[in-house]
Amino acid sequence: MQERAEQTRRSLLEAAASLFDERGYAGTSISDIATRSGHTSGAIYFHYASKEKLALAVVEGHFATWPPLIERHTEPATGTPALEQLVGLSFAVARAFRDDIVVRAGARLWTERTLIAAPLPPPFVGWIDAVTAMLERSRAEGELAPHIDPERAARTVVCAFFGVHTVSEALDRRRSIEDHLSDLWALLLPSLQARPAPMELLPVARQG
Amino acid sequence: MQERAEQTRRSLLEAAASLFDERGYAGTSISDIATRSGHTSGAIYFHYASKEKLALAVVEGHFATWPPLIERHTEPATGTPALEQLVGLSFAVARAFRDDIVVRAGARLWTERTLIAAPLPPPFVGWIDAVTAMLERSRAEGELAPHIDPERAARTVVCAFFGVHTVSEALDRRRSIEDHLSDLWALLLPSLQARPAPMELLPVARQG
Repeated sequence: MQERAEQTRRSLLEAAASLFDERGYAGTSISDIATRSGHTSGAIYFHYASKEKLALAVVEGHFATWPPLIERHTEPATGTPALEQLVGLSFAVARAFRDDIVVRAGARLWTERTLIAAPLPPPFVGWIDAVTAMLERSRAEGELAPHIDPERAARTVVCAFFGVHTVSEALDRRRSIEDHLSDLWALLLPSLQARPAPMELLPVARQG
Repeated sequence: MQERAEQTRRSLLEAAASLFDERGYAGTSISDIATRSGHTSGAIYFHYASKEKLALAVVEGHFATWPPLIERHTEPATGTPALEQLVGLSFAVARAFRDDIVVRAGARLWTERTLIAAPLPPPFVGWIDAVTAMLERSRAEGELAPHIDPERAARTVVCAFFGVHTVSEALDRRRSIEDHLSDLWALLLPSLQARPAPMELLPVARQG
């Protein structure tokens, strides 16, 4: 019974996410979500109380995607240098943005946040902290260029990364996101590295 | 008479822009705009026909800001190298985003474009073309690193630049945009330059 309720909640969340992603918050009604999910409007009100709460659940689902992904990519036991882990993480995030409907919808809802009568968690700050920690580890490994300030560089990397997403979404719905991300790392990595590797040895080449 | 009509149009446009910037498209009504501008709702319908058309005029005002700004910053007669002109242009654009109400409102309306029943011009593409041209000029001047492809690098620069705007807007309403932009150029410029200058000679230091 518990499990069935969980399945219903998940199927409502995914139906809502796919509609929010396609049509935005204002363009999606409770009855659209009911039709897409195969459940009743009553089920939506029972499980989520309102369209605002359902949108909030999608945005929370978006944010909940990142901690396990970050943890998997920052595992120190693997012996992978922190800068290379950072590049790997960025590609994993890009793929999630391209392929995961809850991630995509959460990002769109966040840009439409002024329309939604529910407070949404602040983005970016958590990312800047996570990337700062990785760059500090890279410094400890002796791989970060000496003039780089980890926190400021982390903010720049996060800015540039989100810019790649915005532009890539506008240009071709992120179909070329991995190419765009490779191009970004090709410009950023040589400045971050204490000993810039020849272009063909950049970890980006191995991710494509 | 003609001039007076022009003044009324401009004052309506600026009142609408300041409200769209503060409250977004959905949160702004014709009567709010009338109150803010000191004109009547009738004047708004007379000059702009509808809220959609007024929003479109703000977005067009946003886009119309760039060609004269680009022209001023790419004047070849000044003898300024293209890469340095590009950095100067980026700071001018950042200041416009921070200080010009029509530019700010146009950017917000563009992110809310799904709500507006009027086709908006596509962004980014024109910027990528303009930056590509500047990087090609830099190549002709012998200042662009040989492995850099002007078009791909231009796309990356535009992506990163818009990302700085998005994050800077979310973090502190762009108050620190010039610092964030200096940090971005400190990472990008050494990769773009054929002979990277020492950090303290980067044109960014002279723009701060």
